[in-house]
Formats: sequence, structure tokens, C-alpha cells
Amino acid sequence: MTIRRLSVYTRCLQQLEEDGVKTVSSQELAERFSLNSAQVRKDLAYFGEFGVRGIGYYVAGLKAELQKILGLDREWAVALIGLGNLGAALFHYKGFTRQGFRIAAIFDEDPAKTGRDVGGVPVLPSADLAREVKARGIQIAIVAVPPDAAQAVTDQLAEAGIKAILNFAPARLRAPRDTRVKHVDLTIELETLSFYLAKGAR
Amino acid sequence: MTIRRLSVYTRCLQQLEEDGVKTVSSQELAERFSLNSAQVRKDLAYFGEFGVRGIGYYVAGLKAELQKILGLDREWAVALIGLGNLGAALFHYKGFTRQGFRIAAIFDEDPAKTGRDVGGVPVLPSADLAREVKARGIQIAIVAVPPDAAQAVTDQLAEAGIKAILNFAPARLRAPRDTRVKHVDLTIELETLSFYLAKGAR
Repeated sequence: MTIRRLSVYTRCLQQLEEDGVKTVSSQELAERFSLNSAQVRKDLAYFGEFGVRGIGYYVAGLKAELQKILGLDREWAVALIGLGNLGAALFHYKGFTRQGFRIAAIFDEDPAKTGRDVGGVPVLPSADLAREVKARGIQIAIVAVPPDAAQAVTDQLAEAGIKAILNFAPARLRAPRDTRVKHVDLTIELETLSFYLAKGAR
Repeated sequence: MTIRRLSVYTRCLQQLEEDGVKTVSSQELAERFSLNSAQVRKDLAYFGEFGVRGIGYYVAGLKAELQKILGLDREWAVALIGLGNLGAALFHYKGFTRQGFRIAAIFDEDPAKTGRDVGGVPVLPSADLAREVKARGIQIAIVAVPPDAAQAVTDQLAEAGIKAILNFAPARLRAPRDTRVKHVDLTIELETLSFYLAKGAR
């Protein structure tokens, strides 16, 4: 099962919980959120113990279990590297905090940007990265630097002991085997739209 | 098959082409890009005509076919709504243009931002949206406004005849049935990382 689908189910369950729904069948879940019902049934079969025959799944129990699997039952300290347009946008993105990802420090090369706080979060010089990552218990880094700076930043992060990197820079990155780099390609999302427009035009 | 996977294969094939590779088997493709090989084989079976028994697939031919399916064999005029931090970051994002998505106009409510060009692209008042969308042949909109403004913008876009919206605002949006809204949830990407960190800690 792809991790992405677990995240999607967690969001659906969260929404159902907010709407006061206590139990849901895989069929209802699929219909309500326009998911593939065979896929939902197959995926949720792994969590059979949270299901009740003829009723479906307990929304709260299943959600809590999925959150635990996704590591969302705790808070993660995150470093944001790069405070340009994209970095600033990501810093203000509300969704991260809501799921337990707390930006604990921002790093930038530009001395004009460092040495101050943004919304209570310190903006620190990149040179201090290794020390600050350790001191602040940071485990995840978000890379929002220009493409030609991304590899150097990745090397620095790996040296500082970071094992999980979310990369927004459109650049191929090399990292040690035990460091997981997740590349965010915003164009892929646009392509699902052009697919539908092109299909309609055929 | 999910559209997203088609996009991923297209990128892999693009990379192979850049590296001078002429043919590739589903097995090689899976290994080289750390994909699920059973899935790749199953997905590519749809494109059997581009495969040669014992050799694999012609990289250029398969790539061109996938691009055609994804609507990437043409250029799309895109409107960017909102020129805040995120809007500015998306405007400068190199990936869009590379795949044929051309930002043809930027719209903003703030009169201090409109009436000028950014990198050759006009920043126009939101009030002119319907007229400009038609005049410029815009078919896709990227919404990068604050969450509380996103629904009003979506209504405006739907009225202007836009059928494909990429939404970055963390807000649930209602749109007409024939309008496809793709919601970008940046937190999902972080969750695949916390999943692996949490798994390692178990």
C-alpha cells in the first residue's frame, strides 16, 4: 500500500470525525470521497481489527491507528532551509503544524535575513546548521533553496545527521543510502489536469 | 492506472532519453528509478505496441505517447491567482514551463500589485478575470490565495469558464460538476517521511 493513500484515508476520517460520523464502511468512504472502492476495501482489510461486520470501521479508532503508522501521534521538529519566496510560503503554510510538523528553525545563507525571528522561529546562518540541528532535536528538513544550491545543502544536512529531506528544488539530489529524500514535483499535479482537459478534447 | 504514475514514468523516460538510453525494459525502469516492478509491468502493458519482445520499450516512442495522453504535446495557458509569497514562488517555479504550462496572466486583488508586468507577464486586477481569461485563451488556473478567499475565487473562475483548477489554499472548495479541482496538500509529502522515521524507531 502506498503511504500516500494512508495519508488520504487519514484526512477523510478526520473530516468524517469533524462531521460527527462514528462508523463508516469502505464503500461509504469510497463514495463520499470519490475514491476507488475496490482499492479502499483492499487497503482497509489490513486494519480488519478496527472493523465490525455489517457496520464498517470505527472512525476514531481507525484514524488513530493510521496516524500512529504515519508517525503523526507525535510532534516532529523540522528545519526549513531557504527563506526566499517559496521558503516564506512554506513557513506560513498552515497544514504542517496541524499534522504535528513544527518548524523549529529556518536557515539561510543571506546575512541580511539571519539573526532575527519570524513568527517566533529563529532565522539562523547556514553555517550553524549541524550544531543547531542537534541542539534543537531536528529530524526532518525542508529544502527550499535555488536548484544550484540544493546539492550542497543536502550534503550539509546528511552530515548533520538528518535522515529525512523534503526537497522542493527542481534538482536531482544525491544523498547517503540511509537518508530518505522526497522530491516534490508541483508540475505532476498540473498534469492530472491537462490529462482531463486533453481527454475531453479528444 | 493513476494519472500520477503516468507522469512519473514520463519523467523517468525523459531522464533516460537525456542519458542517451534508447530502449528500456519494465524491469530496468523499475530498478533504476526504485519503482514497483510488478506495477510498472502491468501499467506499461497498456502500451504494448511500443514494446519489442526481448528488448523492452523504445524510450522516445513511449515517452511521446505518454506525453500525448497527459496533454503535454501542446502548450496550456495558465492563470495564476494571487501574488503573495506562494504565488510568487509558483511563478518562478521552473518546472511548469518545462512541461508546457505557460503562466499567461497573474491576477491579484491588491491594486498595489496590479497594472505592471512580472518577468513579461501582466499582473491584472481580479475584477477583469472573466474578460482576460477569454481574451488570453486560459484553460487552467492555479489558486494561491489565502484560504478565506479561495471559494470566491473558485466561483469567479467557474463563471469565467475555467474547467481545471489547481488549488494550493488549504480550504475545501465547491465547484460545478464539470470543473475539476485538484487540491495540493503539501503535508502529505511530509507524512511519507515521518512514516519512515517512525518505522525506523519502532
